[in-house]
Formats: sequence, C-alpha cells, structure tokens
Amino acid sequence: MYELSRSNRATVAYSFDDVAIAPQRRTRSDSEVDLSWRIDAVTFDLPIVAAPMDSVMSPETAIEMSRLGGLGVLNLEGLWTRYEDPTEQYAQLTEDVDQVTITRRMQQIYAEPVKEELMVARLQQLRAAGVPVAASLSPARTQEYAHVIEKAGLDFFVIRGTTVSAEHVGGGDDVLNLKDFIYRFDTPVLVGGVATYRAALHLMRAGAAGVLVGFGGGATHTTASVLGIEVPMASAVSDVAEARRDYLEESGGRYVHIIADGAVGRSGDIAKAIACGADAVMVGSPLARAAEAPGKGWHWGSEAWHSSLPRGERTYFEQVGTFEEVVVGPSRVPDGTMNLAGGLRKSMAMTGYTDIKSFQRIELILHR
Amino acid sequence: MYELSRSNRATVAYSFDDVAIAPQRRTRSDSEVDLSWRIDAVTFDLPIVAAPMDSVMSPETAIEMSRLGGLGVLNLEGLWTRYEDPTEQYAQLTEDVDQVTITRRMQQIYAEPVKEELMVARLQQLRAAGVPVAASLSPARTQEYAHVIEKAGLDFFVIRGTTVSAEHVGGGDDVLNLKDFIYRFDTPVLVGGVATYRAALHLMRAGAAGVLVGFGGGATHTTASVLGIEVPMASAVSDVAEARRDYLEESGGRYVHIIADGAVGRSGDIAKAIACGADAVMVGSPLARAAEAPGKGWHWGSEAWHSSLPRGERTYFEQVGTFEEVVVGPSRVPDGTMNLAGGLRKSMAMTGYTDIKSFQRIELILHR
Amino acid sequence: MYELSRSNRATVAYSFDDVAIAPQRRTRSDSEVDLSWRIDAVTFDLPIVAAPMDSVMSPETAIEMSRLGGLGVLNLEGLWTRYEDPTEQYAQLTEDVDQVTITRRMQQIYAEPVKEELMVARLQQLRAAGVPVAASLSPARTQEYAHVIEKAGLDFFVIRGTTVSAEHVGGGDDVLNLKDFIYRFDTPVLVGGVATYRAALHLMRAGAAGVLVGFGGGATHTTASVLGIEVPMASAVSDVAEARRDYLEESGGRYVHIIADGAVGRSGDIAKAIACGADAVMVGSPLARAAEAPGKGWHWGSEAWHSSLPRGERTYFEQVGTFEEVVVGPSRVPDGTMNLAGGLRKSMAMTGYTDIKSFQRIELILHR
Amino acid sequence: MYELSRSNRATVAYSFDDVAIAPQRRTRSDSEVDLSWRIDAVTFDLPIVAAPMDSVMSPETAIEMSRLGGLGVLNLEGLWTRYEDPTEQYAQLTEDVDQVTITRRMQQIYAEPVKEELMVARLQQLRAAGVPVAASLSPARTQEYAHVIEKAGLDFFVIRGTTVSAEHVGGGDDVLNLKDFIYRFDTPVLVGGVATYRAALHLMRAGAAGVLVGFGGGATHTTASVLGIEVPMASAVSDVAEARRDYLEESGGRYVHIIADGAVGRSGDIAKAIACGADAVMVGSPLARAAEAPGKGWHWGSEAWHSSLPRGERTYFEQVGTFEEVVVGPSRVPDGTMNLAGGLRKSMAMTGYTDIKSFQRIELILHR
Repeated sequence: MYELSRSNRATVAYSFDDVAIAPQRRTRSDSEVDLSWRIDAVTFDLPIVAAPMDSVMSPETAIEMSRLGGLGVLNLEGLWTRYEDPTEQYAQLTEDVDQVTITRRMQQIYAEPVKEELMVARLQQLRAAGVPVAASLSPARTQEYAHVIEKAGLDFFVIRGTTVSAEHVGGGDDVLNLKDFIYRFDTPVLVGGVATYRAALHLMRAGAAGVLVGFGGGATHTTASVLGIEVPMASAVSDVAEARRDYLEESGGRYVHIIADGAVGRSGDIAKAIACGADAVMVGSPLARAAEAPGKGWHWGSEAWHSSLPRGERTYFEQVGTFEEVVVGPSRVPDGTMNLAGGLRKSMAMTGYTDIKSFQRIELILHR
Repeated sequence: MYELSRSNRATVAYSFDDVAIAPQRRTRSDSEVDLSWRIDAVTFDLPIVAAPMDSVMSPETAIEMSRLGGLGVLNLEGLWTRYEDPTEQYAQLTEDVDQVTITRRMQQIYAEPVKEELMVARLQQLRAAGVPVAASLSPARTQEYAHVIEKAGLDFFVIRGTTVSAEHVGGGDDVLNLKDFIYRFDTPVLVGGVATYRAALHLMRAGAAGVLVGFGGGATHTTASVLGIEVPMASAVSDVAEARRDYLEESGGRYVHIIADGAVGRSGDIAKAIACGADAVMVGSPLARAAEAPGKGWHWGSEAWHSSLPRGERTYFEQVGTFEEVVVGPSRVPDGTMNLAGGLRKSMAMTGYTDIKSFQRIELILHR
Repeated sequence: MYELSRSNRATVAYSFDDVAIAPQRRTRSDSEVDLSWRIDAVTFDLPIVAAPMDSVMSPETAIEMSRLGGLGVLNLEGLWTRYEDPTEQYAQLTEDVDQVTITRRMQQIYAEPVKEELMVARLQQLRAAGVPVAASLSPARTQEYAHVIEKAGLDFFVIRGTTVSAEHVGGGDDVLNLKDFIYRFDTPVLVGGVATYRAALHLMRAGAAGVLVGFGGGATHTTASVLGIEVPMASAVSDVAEARRDYLEESGGRYVHIIADGAVGRSGDIAKAIACGADAVMVGSPLARAAEAPGKGWHWGSEAWHSSLPRGERTYFEQVGTFEEVVVGPSRVPDGTMNLAGGLRKSMAMTGYTDIKSFQRIELILHR
Repeated sequence: MYELSRSNRATVAYSFDDVAIAPQRRTRSDSEVDLSWRIDAVTFDLPIVAAPMDSVMSPETAIEMSRLGGLGVLNLEGLWTRYEDPTEQYAQLTEDVDQVTITRRMQQIYAEPVKEELMVARLQQLRAAGVPVAASLSPARTQEYAHVIEKAGLDFFVIRGTTVSAEHVGGGDDVLNLKDFIYRFDTPVLVGGVATYRAALHLMRAGAAGVLVGFGGGATHTTASVLGIEVPMASAVSDVAEARRDYLEESGGRYVHIIADGAVGRSGDIAKAIACGADAVMVGSPLARAAEAPGKGWHWGSEAWHSSLPRGERTYFEQVGTFEEVVVGPSRVPDGTMNLAGGLRKSMAMTGYTDIKSFQRIELILHR
C-alpha cells in the first residue's frame, strides 16, 4: 500500500513482465513433467485454452486446438454466427488498412445480427468432430441465447466480457442474474474477466467452475487508455488464487479453476501465470501467428468493434508456423511464441517441478 | 517519504500513468450512470471544462462546448482580445514550421496589446448565445481588467497561471490580492494552478469556488525542463482533495470544487482524475483534435509565447472528428481521445458507480 | 519481499544496470592494483574467463585468452568436436540472414554428432600450447564423456548448462550424479548456471571448485521469454556470495570461487560483478567483438540450436580490435568494450582498492 | 537501504530526473529574486561556473562568461596550453566523423605536451581582461605545475578529475598531497569530483574552498559503462550538503561551497541542483550550444582522450544563440537550454524564494 495523499492509499500491482521464475535447488528431466489439466469431467493434455476471438477461432481451428490437447472455444457472437459464410468479411478485416478505417469497417461488419440457426449449426459441427465442445457469449447476450446453449449440450460454456460481476445492478429485465443462471444450468461455466479478490470470490460463490482472470485480448485492447482500467496480471492472478484458497475452505472443498486471460503472449508468460496460481491460461496472440488462424496474422477482440466506444486495436503478428507447431512444437524461433507446451514443460523441469499444482507454489522474484 | 540524504527527504508523487482503476465486485449498466456536475448555481451535464487556450477556444467553440453539456472558457488575453479578426494570426500560427521559428512568431503575435473593447464584445457574444459565460485572465492581469469582468457579469471567472498563490509577495501596487479580489467580487472564481495541500488550502480560504490542480497544457508545456517544477497529477489531485476535506470541516461546510487541469488527454485520464478526488477536469489536447478547433490540430499554451523565457511547445494532434464526437461520441478510434463522456460513463458503469461523488472514493492500484 | 497477494510474496532482485559503484574517500594509482586471481593450483593475471561458445572460442583463441592472462575454455560439444574442419560451418553460421533462417540452420549444423577423437585432438592442441587446459560439457553429456575428460588431464573442467542442480531427479541411468562425479574426479570442476543461495550451497557441498552464477550468454539467450526464468545478476551474485560465506564456515574453510557468467558485456559490469562478490567473470560478447573471434562478430550460445525449443538469438557485434586490445588494451572506444582489464583496474584504483578480495566488500548504490 | 542479499545492502540514489520542485503556498515577482553568489572575496551575479572543457572554454569565452556575471574557467591541460594556435586542432576535432575515428584523433592531438609558457600567456590574457581569473589542472599534474599557478596569482584554482580524494595512496613522490598543497597555497581551491558524504568531508577538512560534486561532463562521459562508477546527482549533492553542514559545526563556522558539476544541462536542472543544496553549478553542454563556443556545437571532456582507456564520447548539440542569450537570455527555445539565469530566477519566484541560500531548503518531490 502506497500513499497518494494522507488519506488516500493505493495498492501496488505487478505485471508478468515485473516478475520472473528463478531456478531452484532441484532440476528434472522434461520427460518427468506432466502438463495435464483436469477440470470437471474432462482431462486435457495441456492447460491451454484458445481465446474465443474471430482472429484465431473458426470451427476448424477450435477443433484443431482440442485435437492438440488444449481447449478450443468458439465465439457465438462473432462472424461465424452472423454470416453463413464469413469468407468475404474475413477478407475485409484482414486487409492492410489504417486503424481508423478498420475500426469503422469492424463497426459495420459486426452490426449484422447474430443468428440462432448459425449458432446451432456451428456447435453441431464441433460436436461432430468428437472434441469437447466449448463456446462463449458476452454477459449482455447470455440471457437471450441461454436456451440455445442449453439445448446444444456444451461441455463448457464461457461467459466472457471486459469485466463481469456477480452483481450487475439495474438495466431492465433481460439483465443476467449470474447466480440463478449458473445454478439452473447443467454445463460448467467459465466466467470473467475478473481481476480482484472480492470480485472473484463473488463469482465463485455464484457457482462458476472457473474464472477468467484479466481482460483478455492483452495484445489488442486499449481499456487502460479509454477507461483508465488496468489490471497488472501477476497481481491479479495471485489475488484471485487467494480468493480460491479462501473459497475452498468456505465451501468445504469446491475447487474453482483459475484461467489467466490476457498478457499471455509467450511460453514464459504461461509459466509465470501458473507460478502466480493459475490452473490454465487462455491465449490469443500466439495463435494469431499460426498459418491456419482465420485472421491471417491480424488479431482483434470484440471490444474493438463497439459502436460508440471502441476499445481495441487490430494488431498484426508475423506468421511463424502451423497451429500444431505453435502449440506443441517443434519451435523454430527463439522468442517464446512457438512450442508453448514445450516452453512450459522445460520451465517446470528446470526448476524441478512435475505437475501444474505444485508449480503454482514456486516462489517468484520481482525485478525492477 | 524517501531519503535523499540523512536530513533531506522527498515525498514520492505519482502521475495518472502510474495509477489505474480496477474492476470491483459490482457492475452497472451505462444508463444508470449520472455524469452531471453541480457547481454554484449551475448544473452541467458533463464534468468537463474546456481549457482557455487559443488553439481550442474561439467564441464559437466555447459556445459549442457549453451546448454539449460542459463548460467553455474563453481566454481574455488571447488572440480574440488582441485582434479584431485573428484569422491571419491563426493562419501564421498553424503553419508547419519548426519550433524555433514558431516560438519567435508567437512572441511577436502575442506582443500586440489586449484591448478592453474586444473583451467586452467577445463576452457579449457568449452571453447572447444563452450559455453559461466563463472567461479567464492570468493572475498578473486580473487586477487591471477586473472592472471589465465585473461589468460583464460572468457566470464563472477563471484565474489561470502556471502557479497561483494566495500570498503573492512584492512587485508593486498592481499585484493581485486574491482574497480581497474574490470577496469583493460576485462571480464564482475558479483559480489555479495549484499542486499541493497547503497552497490549495490557502486558495480555498481566500474564497475560491474551485481550484485548478496542475499546470494545464500538460501536452504542451515544458515547465519541468525550464523550471524544474513538476507535479505528478495523481498525487496532486489527491493532495488537494485532502485539503478540500479539511477545509470543508474548518469552514463548516463550504465545498470547494477541484478541477484537474493537465495530463488529461484521454477518457481514461478523466476517470483517473475523478477517482483521485476531482469533481471535474479541464481538457485541452483532446479538443485540439476536433475539426472545429481554431488551431486546426496545432496546440499551444500561453507559457509558449513568453518574451524572454518561453516554456511551452506547439504540438500537433491528428484531427479525428467533430467537437461533438470528441466530447460525447460516437468514437471511431480506440485510443481514448473520442467520446470522452462515454469513456468516463463506461468506466463508472464497469466498476459499479452511478455518480461522480461516489466514484471519487474508488480505490486505485499503482502499477510499476 | 513484496506482496503479490496476501499470502504470496516475491523477492526483489537487481541487475548490474540497477547498481553502481561510488567513489570513496581514498584513491590509488593504477599501478598499485593487483588483478591476479588464484584458484586451485593456478594463479591467473586476470580474473577473466572466456565463455565456451563457438562464436568466441576456437582452440587458437582459447590459447590466446590464456596467453593474455585469463582462462580460455573450449566447448567440447561445439563445432570443433563435431567437425574435423568447421570452416564451412562457420561460414554458414556467420552469414547475414534472418533469425528464423539461422535458427533452422543452427539446428541442422549442430545435429552432427560429437566425436570422441576430435575431443581428444582439440585438448591435446591446448595442452601442447603450454597454457592451462580448460574445457566444457553440458550436464546432459558429462557422464557420457567423463572418461575422455579424465584421460585428457584437464586443469579445469567446466560443466555449464542453463541451470544445473546438485539434485537432478529422474531421467534414467545416464543422469549425472554431480556429487559422485566430482568426488571421483581429480580435476577441479567449475559448474553452473546457478542463481540462488540454496542451489549454490548444494553445488558447493557437492564439491565444486567454482560456481558459474547466471545463465551465460546474457547478450544472446531468450530464457526470460521462452521459460519465464530470469536472474538479475547483481542479486544473484550477491546471494551466491552469501552461500559461499556460509559454506566456508560449514566446511571449515573450503573457499569456493564465484564466477559471474552472464550480463558482463562491459568493463563496468566486470567491476560491478566483483563488487557484488564474484572472484572472476566469464565473458562472451566482448570477445565476439575481437577480430580473431571465429564468429566474426556474430555471437550465439548453445541454447540457440535446441532442436524443438531454441532459446537464443544470434546477435551481431561490431568488431573493434584484436583479442589483446579487447582484453588488456589499449582501448580506442569509450563504451567499456575494450581494455576490460584496464577498466577494472581503473575502477579499483579510483575507489582506493588494491586487490579483488577487498574490492568485493565495497558498498554499492542502487539507482532508480 | 535495500537488500542485495542477506548481508549485502545498497543505498538508493536519485538523479535530477527523479526529483522535481513543487510550487508552494507563496509566489513572488521575478524582480524580487537575487541570484548573487558570494564565495571568498568575490561576489558573482550568477551562481554559474563554466566547465573547463576545450569544447566550451577558450580564453575569449572564459572572459565572456565572467563578463556575463558567472565564472569562466580555463583548462590548463587543454588545447590552449598544448598549442600556440589551436585553430587547426579545433578544425580537426569538430569534423563530423564517427566515434572511433574521433577517439583516435583526440588521443593523437592531446599527446602533444603541455607548455608552461603557454599557461603563463593564457593566464595573463585573462588577467588583462579585468575579470576574475580561474583555471584548472587535473590532480595528476597539479604538483608539477603548482609553481605556475602560484606565480600567476589566480582568483580561483580548480583541481578537477573524475574523482579526487584527500588521501591518494601510493604512486611515487610526485603524487599530490592535497592537504599540504591547499594550506601552502594562497588561492582558494575548488576541487572534485566527489560524490559521497565521507569523501567530501575529507576534502573540506583538507581546506577546499569549494567542492565539485559529480564527475562533470555529464553529457559526454561514459564512466558508468567503462568503470561501473555512477553517482546520481540529486543524492550526491544532497549527501555532500550534509557533509558541509556537519563540517560547518566541526570547523566552527567554515562554510565550504558546493558546486554541482554534471547532469546540469537545462535551467530546470540548475534549480534542482540548488534545491538539493548546491551553492552554484558548473555547466558544460548548455554552453556548447552557444555560437561562440570553440567546439562549434561538438562537446567533449578530458576523459575522452585517455591514451589506453578513453571514457567519454564527443557529442553534438545544435547551436541556439549567443553565449549571452544562453546564459542570461532572452530565450527563443522552450526546452530550458537558453536563459539559464532566467529559468532559475523564475523557478525561485514561482515558489516564493528570494535568494539561493533559502532556496536550498525547499522540499523536493520524487516522481517515479
């Protein structure tokens, strides 16, 4: 706690760039490390979830992500549910034009309404592929399309907004009562962004199976400039892990998963996120670098197309390899953007850890 | 307090860039948020005051600013009171020439004396538009033109310098005695810049209706390089809010308004300023980006034309939209420079606040 | 210790760039300063060891380094033991191509197996030159080639990896048991990288004659991005010096040498490393600038050619003079990359110290 | 004090860029401010000393500096005492060539021996102009040329090196015993650089009339890279001011002047130096910007031409006006490099101070 003035104090918060992992007294062989992540009834080979962003997730890449051992999530308010065939829209959104032009173009393309029948069709396509089915809606539309989700029988349902609270006040009848919704609903719900102890605790009490920590789209959003809102991730994940620990006791043993969502652009960041207390990470920009990414290297989030207050930039990333190479290697670049799983595995081996849960307890250093 | 040496200590101070707002446990709908600001007899829709700088304020844009729900302020020592028709001067000041050339050109153009009859005419023009009439003078000229101000019957009179104190020592008969002046004067006076608890407390005791915190012209002045004087805004606003709290008790209930003036270039900064304790903000550079701004994107403050010690740079900002779009949207850029009101509203909604006074109490985080 | 959350703390760590040496109350003449470093049976004129990296060490430059008063170390898993005549491979590795191309090329060139007979031949070449013979292996291959090392009768054997522990767990029969190995082995062993008090203490207890602090290849590796692992050097060296102090007491007087290995690119960094507690430094990038360096200015470490997870970049340094000029001067550049010994000597003279051991006790300042 | 390790601590130190002056509760008119500085028998209009660097000081500019109210100092080991007419040498040193070329060229040009008869002639030229005569030698040559200085009857003699101590140990008979020298010598001696409490206290006890705090040549030297030695100026000046306070008591009233020498490039830095406790400043780079500067905008210090370990870069500064305009204005640029005296005066006026001694007590803020 630092003083702004005699009676006004502020808490210091740290980003992933502020912290680092230090080698310990033991090392292990890579082959000893188990990266598996068990949540609800499903065990994933990798603790990596793909962000439901149109730039990286199509039905095909969502399936590929799951095939590689992680979890793909399709955005049910994106191009794939607004357009029968979004090829033309993707072509427009991946042209090399300036930010003002692309912002206006996004505002127009995403003005097309979402269609229920397309939601159903896309979810059937995922189900047919035999992989875990996961899809997302924004908090504002969850109530409206809950029946679609319910009927489709998802494995995981993701409610993802810039910030989501268990107590949304005001705004009429169609506002989501998160607690009622989750308890009525059979599918495990992953919900966020959230960034503080109290807000996370409330989401846990509302029944969330997992919480997304952060704002997502770390590489693309401009929430700090537009809203003044910012959550340095190392502190945010660490705070929410604290809430998880307290809730575990309060609930008599219900373990809520923590998924770091934002500022996770390199394998080293994944290791740091877990070292801060996360069970898994949600990644966007590394996947934007894969050849199969529908955004062809361009990357954008849903806050970028807001009709009156856009809060995200479209950003370009050089493409480096296939989806498989980005996620499980082999890597051909030394910057941490390929072989995400290999980077995490090596980081754990070098510090002597064999599984995600114990790696959460490693001590971090803070560099200036 | 940090040590410079055994007996020399310095207080740490933070800028708006050092702090951020974190989401809380509640959220609200945008429609629940009330941005209105009541000061003296007037209620404004928006807590946004336009800076009395020639680059952004002409009689027309001052009127437009008030029409949009904020407050426009005309500089009574600027081009509009030195020249009957300043078109030619604006043309020269908005040419793309280097800093040395423009500094000399400003020194020449502003050497033309201020004319009382033009002051009167400009103020009548504002009055005729039916909006609240507000205008500014520097502390050095306030005494000299007080009678003009008095006769014009302003709604708000702004005394604005780099730094203003309630105790100016020495310098002859024409020096402003702020306390006498304010008490003799009927119009509510907004006065600054001020940056510390004690200086602000003295201005409050002198009768100010509001104090301007900071130096203004954050984007253009070079006070730090030339004078070594600098006031990181988050700490300055927070300190002055502390003074306001103490003065409120000492005075038995007189509430002095705090207007953050400087380093408020994006909607996120407005949110942070209020979160630090401000009631309103004075903005310059965002308005310089509006199509109607008389500076056509060029932005400069009055310290820039000092005859022997210029302390400001003329800076260029890309024009992004109309005055209306900049102030109340819709925005087409994701960097916080358009739809200032919308950004503030959304920031409050996302953190669960409905009005300015309660938003002043939100806790901030300090990032490294 | 700073808080990440209520129950999660992180230790602050400082890099060489964060600290500085301040002049003291005494000064001395350069001629009064003795830079000699005695380890085991050998006394070196300079406390400077060359890093076993192919970019700087050939048999010829290893000999030259020792001739100049320091210690050259040949990498026994580099080009010189994979190829009878590596001229063609050096030519390919020093072409000006992009990072992706060079990474793939390194992966291919270093896929060629290491050959025992070449190890023997290279070591004989060093021995024949009459200088101290020192060579390195990675921890993973030490067991396999221990007999070669043993037969060759080295003066110093270096085990060097990104991180080495005294307790490597799992991984099959060929895993190195460091303690057994060192005690069985006659040659003094220098081993690292290591970065923390506990890990260093264990290496000391395992019998190391010296520990390498850091990761090496400071100028080229990307461990922080890929693994999230980073050790700011001022704190790491200082921590390991603490372990040395404690081990000295625990062992009843066995003095283990500390060699700072990484982020030592300028003579000022060498002075800082010793001021933090090091006895000597291992340098790479300054030697890459010498005309005789086989990398011709290009510099890379062994982590750069990992087959599935490369963690190093090839970096270019302008060549500034001969090996001799770089190490002992005279210098013709004012940036600390030439006359490394002279820079260290002058730093000690200006602060009034005459030998390495006493210079380790100088107090540092920390600048923001 | 911060921890590097359990038993190794470092003191935090701050630069002028880390601190700032904040407005206080009083303001004053510029005309109320007195900038005069009295040292020994002389009262200067301005507390500004010109650095004895060939790039800024010729006999002519030294005289001009004194004429303007400050103090010019000629370097007695520079071009003017090595060459009868250094025009050709200046031409070579002000050519636009790269750093390596210019370093070698400086090493050659300054290899020419210093000539006693030229020292005498240059000092007579200063004396003839009727201004205070001040000149400098390095500590290494002071003993050798003391008799010249003594005979010339200077008003101030400056001993200036990177770091000077009252206890130089070893190095033969010709080593300067500062205490003996000063006590034997009639002229007031200004000596430095010095950067810490203890070292300064010893210089004060040795009889110095003033101490130079810092290394000088802030804009050009590379001491931090080459030697690892660095002294953030705000802390250094503040520490030495502490020593002055203690010495004043210990000596029963002998007041030693503190002259900040280094990192004083803008008028704001001058104000900060005095606010930290300095009585005056020694400036180099601002004068390099004057049209009359013999370096024609190129700026270099004596450490740049060291024969085996050069520690300074030649740096270019755009020329902005005459010597007079740079020192006392009027200014035509808003960056603090013109009208140094005016900037200091305005800074004091805006914070309510009338003289240098009281301005030393203003409280500083530390920004992040």
